[in-house]
Amino acid sequence: MTRMGLYCSRCSMQIPFRYQDMKCVCGGTLLVHYDLESVAKTMTKEALWHRSSSMWRYKELLPVSDPDCVVSLGEGWTPLLRMSNWEQKLQLSELWIKREEQNPTGSFKSRGFSVAVSLLKESKVTKAAVPSNGNAASALAAYASRAGIASFVFIPLDCPSLIVEECPLYGASTCLVDGFIHDAAAIIEAGKKDQGWVNVGTLKEPGRVEGKKTMGIELAEQLGWTFPDVIIYPTGGGSGIIGMWKAYLELKALGWIQCDMPKFVCVQEEGCQPIVEGLRSRRNGADRNALPSVQAGITSSPTGMRVPNPPDLDLILSIVEQSGGTAIAVSKQQIAEAGQTLGAQGISSSPEGSATWAGLLTLCDSGWLSPSDSVVLFNTSHAMKYAASGVPDSLPIIKNYEEYLRLRNA
Amino acid sequence: MTRMGLYCSRCSMQIPFRYQDMKCVCGGTLLVHYDLESVAKTMTKEALWHRSSSMWRYKELLPVSDPDCVVSLGEGWTPLLRMSNWEQKLQLSELWIKREEQNPTGSFKSRGFSVAVSLLKESKVTKAAVPSNGNAASALAAYASRAGIASFVFIPLDCPSLIVEECPLYGASTCLVDGFIHDAAAIIEAGKKDQGWVNVGTLKEPGRVEGKKTMGIELAEQLGWTFPDVIIYPTGGGSGIIGMWKAYLELKALGWIQCDMPKFVCVQEEGCQPIVEGLRSRRNGADRNALPSVQAGITSSPTGMRVPNPPDLDLILSIVEQSGGTAIAVSKQQIAEAGQTLGAQGISSSPEGSATWAGLLTLCDSGWLSPSDSVVLFNTSHAMKYAASGVPDSLPIIKNYEEYLRLRNA
Ligand SMILES: Cc1ncc(COP(=O)(O)O)c(C=O)c1O
Ligand SMILES: Cc1ncc(COP(=O)(O)O)c(C=O)c1O
Repeated sequence: MTRMGLYCSRCSMQIPFRYQDMKCVCGGTLLVHYDLESVAKTMTKEALWHRSSSMWRYKELLPVSDPDCVVSLGEGWTPLLRMSNWEQKLQLSELWIKREEQNPTGSFKSRGFSVAVSLLKESKVTKAAVPSNGNAASALAAYASRAGIASFVFIPLDCPSLIVEECPLYGASTCLVDGFIHDAAAIIEAGKKDQGWVNVGTLKEPGRVEGKKTMGIELAEQLGWTFPDVIIYPTGGGSGIIGMWKAYLELKALGWIQCDMPKFVCVQEEGCQPIVEGLRSRRNGADRNALPSVQAGITSSPTGMRVPNPPDLDLILSIVEQSGGTAIAVSKQQIAEAGQTLGAQGISSSPEGSATWAGLLTLCDSGWLSPSDSVVLFNTSHAMKYAASGVPDSLPIIKNYEEYLRLRNA
Repeated sequence: MTRMGLYCSRCSMQIPFRYQDMKCVCGGTLLVHYDLESVAKTMTKEALWHRSSSMWRYKELLPVSDPDCVVSLGEGWTPLLRMSNWEQKLQLSELWIKREEQNPTGSFKSRGFSVAVSLLKESKVTKAAVPSNGNAASALAAYASRAGIASFVFIPLDCPSLIVEECPLYGASTCLVDGFIHDAAAIIEAGKKDQGWVNVGTLKEPGRVEGKKTMGIELAEQLGWTFPDVIIYPTGGGSGIIGMWKAYLELKALGWIQCDMPKFVCVQEEGCQPIVEGLRSRRNGADRNALPSVQAGITSSPTGMRVPNPPDLDLILSIVEQSGGTAIAVSKQQIAEAGQTLGAQGISSSPEGSATWAGLLTLCDSGWLSPSDSVVLFNTSHAMKYAASGVPDSLPIIKNYEEYLRLRNA
């Protein structure tokens, strides 16, 4: 077993492994600690050639100790698509899109829940609950069902109805919450003892960050064991950023990659931008305890980026700063236009994925990106899952070619 | 270049390669012919270890000669998921689901259009049209946009609105047709000369069958270069079955696999079951010219299986018969129940994918399948794409844990 225990990302204290309660006494977040020497014994670059095309190819860097407890639906090893045409237009050395929507539940959330639910299975947990803007709920629902664990999901009322619909389809007990994701979280905290729920919300347990870590390892492997210069990621609770950053620390510690860490860019939608504001406060000298907490006046759309109060904002800000990255907010309008641009390139991008494109354009315009940069965007979910159904009225209806001609000439 | 020309699947006549007009003078369908000796020179089992996780890993068995013309969005190499729990329940030696919904356009149609559009690009075609029940249209739209080719899609009015919506998103000129897929096809045939459209409908060009062929090669590779005993496939126009069968002929000719061909089972929905009926007619001694043509009274749902008049029914029937397979029709009700069963296993299956599960149950019940059989089902698209939007009214709406308790106890 390569998993050794947990360490605090703030004060570095080490404690034995546990699958619940990730807050250190210092207030920092506990993360999984591995015995990298054992990892290196069986996980080599050559060994990987012969492994399955799933994120479980990196099993030594995942915290599940009993292989029989791995709960898999075919997650990870998603395509990394090069956008050559746009490299010229935008003057970048390389531009890639990581197609996370091709995961089994249609979003990158499959990764985190594959690991989290495996740990639940290993720990013989029978009931799990999550507060979610939708994709995490549907991923918990799917993986829990696969593992025979009951799932309870709590989703803000205004979240995309198609994603909500997936949850009962996958067998979850599904509740809509008249409020935001933190209101949903409060319900779980209030009920968990009573109901026997294990809360698998962001940073409540170790598995989800570890699962998302595989996005970073995969990216490095797909780029021939290098890092890109810049990663643009649609950020909500932050476990994606934390996971990828952890991946890169581990790959460096293993001696597999020497180059600089990528710059992490967090993109959010205007109207709920705690990371952008936190970064500004820190630049103005505020310490971690003075960071803004739950915002008033949340006006952004109900997407995965709408997390007014990320559980460890401090850690996200440190990663962004240490990496030389930044955080930007883009408008609803910019996100919609970006979705059309990506659609016209054959890519189905969710608002979150589109936001990274909008962020890219902003950073090109401002000169923050340079022509030598290689940039990777994360398309974290499908356009389709966010669709308001109903065929657009603007589409013509015809019976034969004559009617086609008549309409065209009209 | 490994592509040599075309051969007729009925009379075996060989002709030079062309990217349009796949009807042989004898009425059979023309398919691509390869120089297997050249293929074997560079495509070896070992060489494949180091190739990309996309269907283009089999490039020597794909008909695109100019690598710069390959139009890719990250298609193929989809997960093959084992259903161990159900092997015991159903008394089968192995049960697998090939998760084709994890393709870039959310369905297996990505494969065919990646190749078809690459051939269009190679041939400098600028306009392509397709009649489709939805998924083929959205795949053409996506790949054509990626290649800078204009696409024109014609879809029956009652097809799933979310799939229809994807077409304009991907930049296709989209028309709804008041009729069935053959009525849509008739519009393209009537207008193609005038409008300069190349018709990329089923068996109108060589690329789509070749692209779908990769489902079969992949399956064999993922199973350690063997064939399963039985493949259950939701069949409409038939290019999936034709493609996989061709894959297996080629793998056998290459000497890579010795075992028997898998039995092909075509599943259709009651109310449009030309393959089931064709098979019955042949068993009763009808020759190919006496096969039923366009059926009256089509009552099945608007899915990819609703193709009343497959372009080469004779070829499909021959494959099914030669392989020792069969064809079965399942009811709307059985399909809906199968979708729930799969959902409760964490799998998002389209009606077509669900139909294969319904077919599986039928074949288990009837004793057609035996306990030594390894069986593979194809989940060809996502449940989500077929959803009628709108959050189910039955879901509770709450504000806090007290309300949760009140509702639970009510
Ligand atoms: C599609 C999508 N993108 C991005 C995010 C934000 O991810 P993270 O929690 O890693 O910051 C979410 C979270 O709900 C999401 O569903
Ligand atoms: C989801 C889905 N499954 C199955 C089919 C039938 O495929 P084939 O043309 O290979 O018979 C289609 C065709 O439209 C489809 O969209």
